[in-house]
Amino acid sequence: MCTKWDDEPELRIAAFEHCFVLLNRDQFFPGYTFVFTRSHVTELFHLSPQVRSAIMEEVNCVAAALFNAFSPAKINYELLGNMVPHMHWHLVPRFTDDPLWPRPIWSEPHEPVILSAEQYRERIGIIRTLLETQKNGA
Amino acid sequence: MCTKWDDEPELRIAAFEHCFVLLNRDQFFPGYTFVFTRSHVTELFHLSPQVRSAIMEEVNCVAAALFNAFSPAKINYELLGNMVPHMHWHLVPRFTDDPLWPRPIWSEPHEPVILSAEQYRERIGIIRTLLETQKNGA
Repeated sequence: MCTKWDDEPELRIAAFEHCFVLLNRDQFFPGYTFVFTRSHVTELFHLSPQVRSAIMEEVNCVAAALFNAFSPAKINYELLGNMVPHMHWHLVPRFTDDPLWPRPIWSEPHEPVILSAEQYRERIGIIRTLLETQKNGA
Repeated sequence: MCTKWDDEPELRIAAFEHCFVLLNRDQFFPGYTFVFTRSHVTELFHLSPQVRSAIMEEVNCVAAALFNAFSPAKINYELLGNMVPHMHWHLVPRFTDDPLWPRPIWSEPHEPVILSAEQYRERIGIIRTLLETQKNGA
């Protein structure tokens, strides 16, 4: 996570005060997005209430934008960190016609869905537009 | 979720202002706890910032107590709701010697681990004590 922002500029969606927002390269679940903290922190309870709240507002803002962008049945919010402890949220729009619905995204392995550069740009553009709408409406 | 609190009194850990806290009957992952909202809500972005923040502080408080109670390597925080939309968090202490580590808890099915009534009481007692410590230290 620590270098993902630098390593994958073509997947960048937004840079917030506390978090970076990056599209997952694997778009098997359309709109699957990472929100990860700028600081190398690991657990919510290591943060001050102010920073925790600010991070959660950023996570929330991205979730709302994904919901408005893709009209899924549900957003899944997952903060795991077993493999990569650096705090990162998996925000995954879930659709009733996705192959794993209604099970968690991890219940079955799948081949990654890789988009063209143009498709990534388009998808990121849609999310950015909704994030802007979100911000202006807040 | 809506009736779980009434249906499973022997698994109750705590009743907060916004959320109920309940031990998962399946203790394959020791300490696996649900935090679910009293109100029937589904997405974080449907809540006011005040209520969202209050709920997250309750989730955080339980996560810290679980960490202090069980000394896991990591806490997993998951808000899914595909099957049961009523907002509920899966808070799962993860250990480096758990059979699925470091993969998500959903990566493989498992037989549920059911405890004796006395074992549930004991485990719940430990978490409650740490929740109290948490509250008094806050």
